[in-house]
Amino acid sequence: MKKLILFVLLFSASVFAQTPSPTPLLYSEKTLADLQKIQQHALASDYAYMQTAYLSNNIGPRLTGSAQAERAVQYVAEEMRKLGLEVRLQKLTVPHWVRGEERGELVEWNGMANGSTQKIVLTALGGSVATNADSLTAEVVVVESFDELKKLGVKNIEGKIVLYNVKFDRTLAELNQAGAAYGQIGPYRGIGASEAAKLGALAVLVRSAGGSQNRLAHTGSLRYLDGVKQIPAAAVPFEDAETIANLAKSGKVRMKLVLTPQKLPDTTSYNVIADLKGSEKADEIVVVGGHLDSWDLGTGALDDAVGVSMAMQTVYTLKQLNLRPKRTVRVVAFMNEENGFVGATKYAEEENAAQHFAAIEGDLGASHPIGFIFAGKPEALPFLRPIADILNKQGAGQINVQPNASSDISTLTAKGVPSFGPWFDTRTYFNYHHTAADTFDKVVPKELAENASVMAVLAYGLANLEQPLPR
Amino acid sequence: MKKLILFVLLFSASVFAQTPSPTPLLYSEKTLADLQKIQQHALASDYAYMQTAYLSNNIGPRLTGSAQAERAVQYVAEEMRKLGLEVRLQKLTVPHWVRGEERGELVEWNGMANGSTQKIVLTALGGSVATNADSLTAEVVVVESFDELKKLGVKNIEGKIVLYNVKFDRTLAELNQAGAAYGQIGPYRGIGASEAAKLGALAVLVRSAGGSQNRLAHTGSLRYLDGVKQIPAAAVPFEDAETIANLAKSGKVRMKLVLTPQKLPDTTSYNVIADLKGSEKADEIVVVGGHLDSWDLGTGALDDAVGVSMAMQTVYTLKQLNLRPKRTVRVVAFMNEENGFVGATKYAEEENAAQHFAAIEGDLGASHPIGFIFAGKPEALPFLRPIADILNKQGAGQINVQPNASSDISTLTAKGVPSFGPWFDTRTYFNYHHTAADTFDKVVPKELAENASVMAVLAYGLANLEQPLPR
Repeated sequence: MKKLILFVLLFSASVFAQTPSPTPLLYSEKTLADLQKIQQHALASDYAYMQTAYLSNNIGPRLTGSAQAERAVQYVAEEMRKLGLEVRLQKLTVPHWVRGEERGELVEWNGMANGSTQKIVLTALGGSVATNADSLTAEVVVVESFDELKKLGVKNIEGKIVLYNVKFDRTLAELNQAGAAYGQIGPYRGIGASEAAKLGALAVLVRSAGGSQNRLAHTGSLRYLDGVKQIPAAAVPFEDAETIANLAKSGKVRMKLVLTPQKLPDTTSYNVIADLKGSEKADEIVVVGGHLDSWDLGTGALDDAVGVSMAMQTVYTLKQLNLRPKRTVRVVAFMNEENGFVGATKYAEEENAAQHFAAIEGDLGASHPIGFIFAGKPEALPFLRPIADILNKQGAGQINVQPNASSDISTLTAKGVPSFGPWFDTRTYFNYHHTAADTFDKVVPKELAENASVMAVLAYGLANLEQPLPR
Repeated sequence: MKKLILFVLLFSASVFAQTPSPTPLLYSEKTLADLQKIQQHALASDYAYMQTAYLSNNIGPRLTGSAQAERAVQYVAEEMRKLGLEVRLQKLTVPHWVRGEERGELVEWNGMANGSTQKIVLTALGGSVATNADSLTAEVVVVESFDELKKLGVKNIEGKIVLYNVKFDRTLAELNQAGAAYGQIGPYRGIGASEAAKLGALAVLVRSAGGSQNRLAHTGSLRYLDGVKQIPAAAVPFEDAETIANLAKSGKVRMKLVLTPQKLPDTTSYNVIADLKGSEKADEIVVVGGHLDSWDLGTGALDDAVGVSMAMQTVYTLKQLNLRPKRTVRVVAFMNEENGFVGATKYAEEENAAQHFAAIEGDLGASHPIGFIFAGKPEALPFLRPIADILNKQGAGQINVQPNASSDISTLTAKGVPSFGPWFDTRTYFNYHHTAADTFDKVVPKELAENASVMAVLAYGLANLEQPLPR
C-alpha cells in the first residue's frame, strides 16, 4: 500500500474485529510530496520576514483606529491582490482609544517630601480614562490580591491610588508556561480598576505582566465593570512596583499621576479577507491568519506582524510553487484583537463556521516552533499525524492539544472549527509582549521562516485532506 | 622564613648576583591573617547590600543638585559617624541641571503624514538645552560618523535634526571590553551637538551607548563647544535609531521633538570624607570610594550606589573585626561624577596627593570580580602579589594593569597616587548603565559582597604594607 497513507486507529476498537478496518486515504502521495516542497520553500524564503519588516518598520505601531492601522489594511489587501487572491474588506465598527501623556512621580517617600521627586515609569492600560484636570496626587496603597484589597476596605482605600503588586511567575515562564503565568495576573489588569473603584480608590497601578527586567511597562486592555466609577489605570514595571512596595512598608508614599488618554468616537476599520480559491471544494475554507492591529508602545513586530506575515507566506509559497489547494485557503488579517476583539467577533458572526474546515493563527511571537497547537476533537489526531511527520523534519512535529489554539480564531473554535497555531518556545515572548520593546529587531529571520513553514504545511495539508476532519 | 613574605623580584636583575637580594618585609604575618578575616567577613556580610538598598530604593535617583543627592550626603555622613569615623563634608559648587518633559514622535515617514504618528523613545543628554517654545519639528538626517556629517555639509544639515547612528559594538562588549566599546561612541554623545550645530542643525539624536535591547535610552553628559550655538540633544534606543535609519533610506522622515530640561543656578553640594585614622602613619591615606550622585532615569544602583557601599563595607568590616589600620583608611563618597566632575576635581585640588598612599574606587557595577585594576608603576606589582594571592581564594586574584583605575580617583592617579578598582566581568554592565533600568534588583547580593571583599582586602593590605609602594 505504498500509494496510501493509512488511517490507523490509535486504540484498536475491538478485539473481535476479524477483518481489517477500512483504510481511508488521508493524503495523496502527490499532496505529501507537495507538502515537503512547501516546507522547503517556506524555510528558505524571506517573504514573511520582509512583510514583518514592512508592517512593523515602515508602517509602525497599528493601534485600532490609527492612521497606521488603516494603512496596514490597505497594504495587506494590496499585497494579496498582487498574488492574485480574491480580496474583500470586512467592515467593522471599532473603538478608537488614543494614548496621551503619561507620567508618574513619587513626591513623598521615606520621610522625604518638599521637592524630592522620583520618576515612576508607567503606561496607561488600554481603555483607561484620564486623570482629572492636569494630574492626580494621592497616597499609594499596595495590595497583593483582591482579598487583601477587600480586607483593607473603604476606610483604607478611599482617596488612594491602589498598586496591585502581583508578581508575574518567571519560574513558570521559564518552564515554557508563560501563558499560564500571564493568565494568573490577567484579572488584576482586567478588572482591578473597577474593584478598587468600588472601595473609593482614585486610580490603580498594576505591576506589569511579563518577564521584562528592563524597566518596561506592559500595557493591555482593562475592562470597566458596569455601574462602577471609571478610574484611571496604568501598568508600572516590576522595578517600580517593588520600589513602591518596599517604600510603603516603612512609611507614607505619595505619588503624582498624569494620564491623558482619550476615548474618541468609534470608527470604521476592516478585517482583510483574501481567498486562494480551492480547485475542488472551494466552499470549504482553511483560514490562515494573524491580527493586524498592535499596541502602540512598540511597533507590534512580535504581536502580531509575524502572525499576519506567516499567513501571507502561506499563500505566497503556494503561488510560487503553482500549487492550488483543493479547499480554499483564506488569509484573514484580523483587526482589533488587542482592545475590543471586534474583528474576530464579527468574522465569526458574519461568516459561516460550518464552511470552515479549519483555522490556523500565529499570535504568540515567532520563536523556534516545536510543533503545533490543536484545539478540536481527539478523534482528529490520527488525521494530523502525517502532517506532523513532515513538520518533524524541521523539529516541529509535536502536537499540543489545548482547548483553544489562538485568540482571533477562538470564536471559530467555539463553533466547532478545528483550530491550530504554531507551538513555540514561549520563554522569552512575554519579555517583550505589549511593551515598547516589541520591535522588528526581536524577530529572528530563521525562526520566523520555521513558523511560516508550520503554517503553510498545516494549511495545505488540511486543504488537501481526502477526508472530513472529525469535529 | 615562614614569618615573612618575601619580596621576590619577578625578573632577576643580574646573573652576577652572588648574595641573596635583600628581602624586605611586605606584610606582617598578622596582617596576612587579618586580611583573610576581612575577606571572610566581607563575603558573609550584607552591610554593603543594605547600603545599596537604602541609597537606591529609599533615597532614589541622586542627580547632582537634587534633594535626594543632599539626602544621600547626610545619610552617608551619618552612617560613617555611627561607625566612629571622623567625618567632614567638602564643600563644592556644583551644576544643577534638571530633566523636564521629553517626547519624540515621527510625524512623517514612508510617505505617511496627515495624522500618522509613531512614538520615538528618547531621553535628553545631561546638560542639554531645551527645544524652543513647545516643540521642534524637522526632517531627520542620519549619519554614521563625523566625516559623513561634514561631507553632507551645511546645505544638507541646516534646519534638520541630525541622528548619529553609530553602533555600540556588542561583540566587543561580549569580549569583556565593554569599556572600549563605550569609548568608541563617546565623542558623538560628547560633542555631536556642537559639531552638528556648526552646520546649522536644529537638534541632534544620538544612538544609545550600551548593549540594551529593550528600548532603553542611555543618557550621559554632553559638552557644548565654546562659541557654537547650543542645540538640544537626546539619546534614542538602538531600536529607534535603526527604525529611523531604515525609514530615511526610502524617503523623508520628519520628527517632532519636545525637550524641556533646565539649567538652574549652580548650587552647593559636598564630597563626604570619613577617616578611620591609622595607628602608626595616620597622615598617609588609603582612599576607598565611589560616587554618590547618579543619573536620574534609574535609581543609580549599579552606578554607583554599589561603589559607595563597598567603601562603607570596608570600614564597617574593619570596625566589626576591631582592626585599626596602620595608615588611615578614608571613605570618600564623591559628588557630581556624572555631570561636571566637580567632586573629584576639587578633592584632588584641596587634598594633598603626596599624602595619599593609594586610592581605590568601584565604579563599574558589581558583577563577579575576577581581580583588580591597578594604575601605577610596574615596580609596585610584586608588592601587590600577596594581596592578589589572598583575593585569589575568592577567584579575584588577577591584576589588570591599566593607565587609569576609576573615574573619580583618576585625578589622584594623575598626581602619582597608585590607584585601584575591583575588576569585573563587565559584559552586562552597559546593558543597564545610564538607563532607567539601573535599579536595585540588578544587584546580586553575593557578587556585591565579593566586590566589597576585594576593596576591603586591598585597602587594609595597602594600609598595612610595611614598605612604601613604588610610585
